[in-house]
Amino acid sequence: MTAPLVMAMPGNEALAAGLAATLGAERAALETRRFPDGETYLRLLDEPRGRSLAIVCTLARPDEKVLPLVFAAATARELGATRVGLVAPYLAYMRQDRRFRSGEAVTSRPFARLLSETFDWLVTVDPHLHRYGALGEIYRIPTRVVHAAPLISAWIEANVAEPLVIGPDRESEQWVSAVAAAAAAPWSVLEKVRHGDRDVEIRFEDLGAWRGRTPVLVDDIISSGRTMIAAVRRLAEAGFAAPVCIAVHGLFADASDRLLAEAGARVVTTDTVPHATNQVSVAPLVAEALRAVAASA
Amino acid sequence: MTAPLVMAMPGNEALAAGLAATLGAERAALETRRFPDGETYLRLLDEPRGRSLAIVCTLARPDEKVLPLVFAAATARELGATRVGLVAPYLAYMRQDRRFRSGEAVTSRPFARLLSETFDWLVTVDPHLHRYGALGEIYRIPTRVVHAAPLISAWIEANVAEPLVIGPDRESEQWVSAVAAAAAAPWSVLEKVRHGDRDVEIRFEDLGAWRGRTPVLVDDIISSGRTMIAAVRRLAEAGFAAPVCIAVHGLFADASDRLLAEAGARVVTTDTVPHATNQVSVAPLVAEALRAVAASA
Repeated sequence: MTAPLVMAMPGNEALAAGLAATLGAERAALETRRFPDGETYLRLLDEPRGRSLAIVCTLARPDEKVLPLVFAAATARELGATRVGLVAPYLAYMRQDRRFRSGEAVTSRPFARLLSETFDWLVTVDPHLHRYGALGEIYRIPTRVVHAAPLISAWIEANVAEPLVIGPDRESEQWVSAVAAAAAAPWSVLEKVRHGDRDVEIRFEDLGAWRGRTPVLVDDIISSGRTMIAAVRRLAEAGFAAPVCIAVHGLFADASDRLLAEAGARVVTTDTVPHATNQVSVAPLVAEALRAVAASA
Repeated sequence: MTAPLVMAMPGNEALAAGLAATLGAERAALETRRFPDGETYLRLLDEPRGRSLAIVCTLARPDEKVLPLVFAAATARELGATRVGLVAPYLAYMRQDRRFRSGEAVTSRPFARLLSETFDWLVTVDPHLHRYGALGEIYRIPTRVVHAAPLISAWIEANVAEPLVIGPDRESEQWVSAVAAAAAAPWSVLEKVRHGDRDVEIRFEDLGAWRGRTPVLVDDIISSGRTMIAAVRRLAEAGFAAPVCIAVHGLFADASDRLLAEAGARVVTTDTVPHATNQVSVAPLVAEALRAVAASA
């Protein structure tokens, strides 16, 4: 079979180009703009008749991205696309996975339902699975999950001389130990006490044995970055060299990229969310997953 | 039957209060906020178990409003609401009703599909029906349309001594003549030549016979306001008194409210989109439509 057409939603052109290059796939162009009243205008410049289509759209800051995505998928189907899949290197609304207080929206479920009704398949990178064991618990379409850990390990090994890998919490132990093992580095995890969306207290075990190593703080997501910023400061107080902070998904809410830099950290992310800190490309692994799911779905 | 619970999405509290008061209905409270990463948090503070629920959300600037609306409706159903309807006094995405160029998204259709999958019924005010004869051509749920023309006529009659009602184009003749007749006023329409989203040339017939009257420019929507601004200037050149501009839906893109005021117009709108120019409340008529559709749907 031929590779699917690859079409980028606005802002996703770089990853789409990487995917198309890896797959030897054709790109499909999209024109979008806003009408003066705030509605979206959207036009597929390459009609997908008889073709399978992969739409690339990372879902950081998702609320205003969903409707254009629904329009693009619906239009592709009207114009004869045989299958329409979504490559969302960052998948939103994975964190509200339980009703913590009465009346709360468990947003992960209606979000998954909406995407499942819109697309035939989904490829993503390290979704924030917490209480869900797998995407299949809420997504009703074939999904493929890319794991960025090997890419992060390889980056650490190539760029940090004597690393000490530090994870954000006890729950991350399995992931952090695997990242560290593949980078041939020792590891530890923080203890995190959360007092609110933006208020996190952190503690760490005695790291005296590792003084002299470069701390490498790793996490799946940097959002408000409170944990990492606090950890960077605590590590400086403890006499460590300036740390490296690595995340799969750099969301950088509340100007946390600037705050981390000001605290002395070097920040590195994968390109699941386009940002100046992108140093690691997920494109080859995503291309592989896309090829597999498009062939089977 | 008891009236539905009435719940306002953020910004729609005033209309929701008016509806609840007219219907003798209970209000249901909603808490929403944004997480630092841009995702929406949403909580129904009054559980709707066993009740019918009317969610009030005007859809000006719709793209970022749709996902919270989907979450609110899904959560209400999970929490046992028997029916969930939408009161959208301004309904978005009615204008892209045909594929004018190859590949264009006919956004009215997937938008209608999404709302039809989310809600059991829909009440709106003067949707911009152009090529569609009725909402039922694209909405698959029961709908009720409220017509604001009688409210506008009544406002003109009560507030303008010697009005000359002027509509935006030939297509508006039927509506404009009805508005004028009920206000016991003469009327005319502009000729409009559109060169782009923001570039409109207008002409009008000889209005010499009506000099001395106060021009009342009426339209269903003021968006970029180009037509009205141009008309206001041409009327001043022709020696008319400062006009009144009345619209059902005041979207006021591109600061058109300020530009109209600067051109010398008095601007009046209904409260389908909350704005300082709201002088006419659709609440009584919307309440009536809500009662009827909630009883039958």
